[in-house]
This record gives sequence, structure tokens and C-alpha cells, in this order.
Amino acid sequence: MQKDDCETVRQIVAATGLFRVGEIDVAVELVQARLDKGAASGYEFVFAEQKGETIGYICFGKNTLTVSSFDVYWIAVEPSKQGQGIGQLLLEEAERQIAAASGARIYIETSHRSDYQATRGFYERCGYTLAAVLDDFYAPGDSKATYFKVIDTLAQPSA
Amino acid sequence: MQKDDCETVRQIVAATGLFRVGEIDVAVELVQARLDKGAASGYEFVFAEQKGETIGYICFGKNTLTVSSFDVYWIAVEPSKQGQGIGQLLLEEAERQIAAASGARIYIETSHRSDYQATRGFYERCGYTLAAVLDDFYAPGDSKATYFKVIDTLAQPSA
Repeated sequence: MQKDDCETVRQIVAATGLFRVGEIDVAVELVQARLDKGAASGYEFVFAEQKGETIGYICFGKNTLTVSSFDVYWIAVEPSKQGQGIGQLLLEEAERQIAAASGARIYIETSHRSDYQATRGFYERCGYTLAAVLDDFYAPGDSKATYFKVIDTLAQPSA
Repeated sequence: MQKDDCETVRQIVAATGLFRVGEIDVAVELVQARLDKGAASGYEFVFAEQKGETIGYICFGKNTLTVSSFDVYWIAVEPSKQGQGIGQLLLEEAERQIAAASGARIYIETSHRSDYQATRGFYERCGYTLAAVLDDFYAPGDSKATYFKVIDTLAQPSA
């Protein structure tokens, strides 16, 4: 992690066109918290690089109110690099690190808006199950969908 | 807010007997964040006092990922002072402040465990509706219940 990761994350998250300004600020705040406090921030990052350029990242961490649940706080891939499996590689690396940290469940919260349909399809293809929808959570007409995956299925792959 | 609010909150939250050590630490961290950063922390507090002694409190704030949703992060009343309507007074004062800040929805996350049954009944009596249950969220056998209230109902009391 380095200082210019803040700007890199801001650019990638903004480029997706999916987030409000306030949401982009929160994404950058998580990078700054990691830079300021290190692992004590509770935020883990994995970056995807291609030819020396950062083209995507995932941010996750243990939910400190839980015994063994982890949250994926953010995942984003530069739009011109989407559809190449980079998001899946990022998510799988996060899952490996969460399994190694004895995580039992992974939660991902995302929008239920129609322009997030590809995002939700991505999580479903990656083995995540829709657990709840909170109506109008993010804004009127912008509900929150919560997906989860049980880590047992990662530690014990089917034969 | 003053320095010794950290210890006061720790004592009240611990006295309820409902929270794990890690959860109590998080409750105190929110007080410290408010002391360190003021309103910029995003955490608002209301304390209930009786004869100069703090006997309960509520902590809430705007969810920065949303346009107008607020979270109640914590509410606790000293066990010997429960059953006198103090929790309801705290929650109503938070609702008034949230309405004044143009909040549209209030969310409260709590445990679905049987020893939280009185807590859930309290939220239901206060007009909150169960929106989702996430199984085994806090720990195996300790699911998360999410309640919500639409603020319209506060701004427009029935005739």
C-alpha cells in the first residue's frame, strides 16, 4: 500500500460509473485508513496489476462485531478491463485469505438497481447467495441486496 | 461528550450482559471516535441521566453510503433502570434528531438469539419492522435481525 493508492482507487471506482460521489469518498477513506493504521484498520486490500498498471482491487475485512464473518467492502475493475475474469481472481484471492484467517462466512452488500444487474450476476456466478433485500436502503428506488457465501464450501471442495 | 464517557459506556454496555468483549470494545471505540473527531465522526450520542448519573445512551448516525438512511449503532440502559421507558425516550429523541436531519429511514441491527427477545420486542413496540434475518451472522447460532422504520410516519403523525 502506498500513498498514491488513494488516487488510483478513486479513479477506478469513479470510472465504473456505478457510484455516487459520497460513495467514492468512502472507498478512498478505507484506503486512507489502511495507510494510517495498517492492519489495525481492519481493511485488507488486494490489487490487480497488468503491465505495471493497477486495473482493479478488492477491499475486505473481518466484521469486528462478529466471531468469524467477513465483509467485502469494495470490489472494482477498470471498465476497459472487465470481462476478463479479473474480478473473479480478486474475489478468489480474498476468499483464500479469509479462509486462512478462519473466516466462516463472507457478506457482500450491493445495490439492487437495474444498472447493478451485471454486478449481482457476477456474485451469483462466484457462488454467492442472495440473503436479503432492504427496500430503498441506499436511496428511494435504490434497495440494498446482501449476498453471502459459507466458507466451508471453500475449505472442503467437492470431490 | 467528555473523556469519561468511554468508561461510562463500557460499564452500561457490559452491565446488560448481552454483549461479547469484542462488541463492548466496538461500543467504546464509537465514543472515542466522537471525542476525537466530533460531528465528523458520523456518530451522534444522546445520554439519559437520572440524579446526575448516566443510566443509558443511544448512538446513531447517517449511513454515509446512503442518501438519507440512518443507523442506530447502539442503545443500552443500565439493567436496574430498565422497564421505565428510558430506552423508548432515547429512541424517540434519536428519531426526532434524524427527522430534523431529513432522514428517511432508520435501521437497527440486533441479534436474533433468544436472550435478545425482549430487545426485539422493544423495537417492535417502538414501531420497527423486521426486514431481514441473516443466519449465523454474528456467530454460529447467532443470527442478525435487521429492523427498520420509515421516517414519513414520524413526520406525519396519524390524526
